[in-house]
Amino acid sequence: MTPDQLLASITPQARNEPDSGIVKAAMYGFGRPDVIPLWTGEGNLPTPEVFSNAAIDSLRRGETFYTWQRGIPELREALARYHEAQFGRSFSFENFFVTSGGMQSIQTAIQMIAGEGDEIILPTPAWPNYAGPLRIQGSVPVEVPMEFRNGRWTLDLDRLFDAVTPRTRAIALNSPSNPIGWTATRDELVAVRNFCRKHGLWIFGDEVYSRFYYGARGETRAPSFLDICDDEERLLLANTFSKNWAMTGWRVGWLQAPRALAPEIERIIQYNTSGTPAFLQKGCVAALDLGEEFIRAQVAKARANRDLVVKLLGNQSRLRFEVPEGAFYLFFGIEGMTNSTATTLRIIDEAKVGFAPGATFGPGGEGHLRMCYLRDPAKIEDALGQFTDWLKTAQIN
Amino acid sequence: MTPDQLLASITPQARNEPDSGIVKAAMYGFGRPDVIPLWTGEGNLPTPEVFSNAAIDSLRRGETFYTWQRGIPELREALARYHEAQFGRSFSFENFFVTSGGMQSIQTAIQMIAGEGDEIILPTPAWPNYAGPLRIQGSVPVEVPMEFRNGRWTLDLDRLFDAVTPRTRAIALNSPSNPIGWTATRDELVAVRNFCRKHGLWIFGDEVYSRFYYGARGETRAPSFLDICDDEERLLLANTFSKNWAMTGWRVGWLQAPRALAPEIERIIQYNTSGTPAFLQKGCVAALDLGEEFIRAQVAKARANRDLVVKLLGNQSRLRFEVPEGAFYLFFGIEGMTNSTATTLRIIDEAKVGFAPGATFGPGGEGHLRMCYLRDPAKIEDALGQFTDWLKTAQIN
Repeated sequence: MTPDQLLASITPQARNEPDSGIVKAAMYGFGRPDVIPLWTGEGNLPTPEVFSNAAIDSLRRGETFYTWQRGIPELREALARYHEAQFGRSFSFENFFVTSGGMQSIQTAIQMIAGEGDEIILPTPAWPNYAGPLRIQGSVPVEVPMEFRNGRWTLDLDRLFDAVTPRTRAIALNSPSNPIGWTATRDELVAVRNFCRKHGLWIFGDEVYSRFYYGARGETRAPSFLDICDDEERLLLANTFSKNWAMTGWRVGWLQAPRALAPEIERIIQYNTSGTPAFLQKGCVAALDLGEEFIRAQVAKARANRDLVVKLLGNQSRLRFEVPEGAFYLFFGIEGMTNSTATTLRIIDEAKVGFAPGATFGPGGEGHLRMCYLRDPAKIEDALGQFTDWLKTAQIN
Repeated sequence: MTPDQLLASITPQARNEPDSGIVKAAMYGFGRPDVIPLWTGEGNLPTPEVFSNAAIDSLRRGETFYTWQRGIPELREALARYHEAQFGRSFSFENFFVTSGGMQSIQTAIQMIAGEGDEIILPTPAWPNYAGPLRIQGSVPVEVPMEFRNGRWTLDLDRLFDAVTPRTRAIALNSPSNPIGWTATRDELVAVRNFCRKHGLWIFGDEVYSRFYYGARGETRAPSFLDICDDEERLLLANTFSKNWAMTGWRVGWLQAPRALAPEIERIIQYNTSGTPAFLQKGCVAALDLGEEFIRAQVAKARANRDLVVKLLGNQSRLRFEVPEGAFYLFFGIEGMTNSTATTLRIIDEAKVGFAPGATFGPGGEGHLRMCYLRDPAKIEDALGQFTDWLKTAQIN
């Protein structure tokens, strides 16, 4: 059977979905030792041994059987403790559902709330992995571009709210934002919450980068829906062990949700992955209980690297960007660039540096590139030296 | 916000989906040390150390970063080798896609081929985790009950083919079958293949139990679509490391599919889980390369236990069943039983034995219970002694 016949046999959504530009860039440059990779959202350190050892001990004990679909009680309790320390209020383990990664948390959330033709409103530029799974399941991501004005990214709340139709089920908000680092203020969160309450919409939040926040007043985390919402309202928060604890390759995350929906969430987990390995969850308990020092070091490194990146690129007249308030990406515009995907591949070939193309982040993203700066600072200096050298003479379009 | 308001805010499919009876029974009896659990499809041995050690070594080496969305090349190559040894023909690594468990393989497959309102035909009794995820995504499982006649389960192929409508996208076939152990003959597989080819349908196969086959001629595996299909046709096969290699808790599986669809499958994997931990995949390579002796011991144990179970229950006048040809379940009818779910819970309380209720396996399942017999034979003797004692006097309805 020909490839075309096979392609014609799958659903139109599966067939027509575009590739992630991040994956495209990474696969283009993967395994080329001369290229400095800054394409994915991943630090350069492996998981600390003390977390891995807890998983290894569990594996050695033979904890290799089916486990709780909602997550092992020990991890759910540890998540409640971690949040109590972060937010200074009580949390119940019953609002935490362990998933096989932050991506799986997003899948579980959208399978819960969005059917065929249902809409979820999404400010962009945004990580492409919100819109993609919505399209694949026949739901509709309604993308509302943010504006880059006077050197700042701004979310126009009126425009966001105007996008609501009778088919809208949720407003999605990623703060701090991947890729732009924009971070919602408490007032903005309250406005979104009030609007969603009034119109019976879900808040679908992604606060994965909340610890990576560089507030002016020495805050240790970004403003959060958890500061202003009830545990039992229309709030779904996707989160992950990937970023804070250097566990990208573990594929463990969690969904924070009303406990009233626990049986429904459990069924969806059952049908998606049938649970997350118990022995990996033991490693995550260790991360939560023993990881604070590591997180502080990660965040300090990200902050210093942010300052380094801003210094190295700040005097480039062809570039424009906002100094990011959070997360660990620089999203920078290049004057005259209209095809970020082609430019990204060219930079891999010609400057030996791996960025991600802005176009993949949706409306408002074209014209930009994204770099991850949670890396070795010496490598960042090398990479940006190569890039700015290239930029001196490159004709870009 | 009240639980009812929250429930009203999710999709009708997510709200109305029934609980799995297997999970219901297991959760009812979980953690009661006096109950002998035979509810889930899981052996009683932990993962062999030699498989775990390969994962541990990888974790210690710090292989904790994002990895190939299609699976690490080493594992895909090992899957090709394993299949070559099983089938005596060549296989390409490009037809194997690593997933986070057999369940995730099923999700990936149905997301590829079935949209809103599309139908997949499914003989029942069947594991509930085919119909469930189809319903959740708005697709339609079309269940065609098999018949239990003269002590045998029979699949009426005419009836199966008659269920096709213009919305049909696939015929699903689980052989050897969970729960009934029925195993398709090569002729039946050829008939399904020919029908699907003629009508442009996908074959969606689950051959997870193919090694657990008790053929009369000493076969080491069941007849398979891989004996009679091309690699590049409308064939999707879900599989898992769970059963053969005692890795239920690892959540690693694979999807065998046309390589022409690799980019589309990769995108769906990206949106579901963003890949499977590389260090777990290293354990799976060890399982494939070093696991044959273990599998043979598992299958020999299952076969001996099947004979034990048949001997212990064969003289019970209130029970009826077919001696299963494959898998590791006994699916037995109880005279007069019309509520298998209530009876399952009663047996947990009164006989201290954990079965799964037949009703959860779809049309044709009510009136039956399922037991998993890949367990310690002494425990099986205890369990069935307790059950048959209970059966002597129990009023069942």
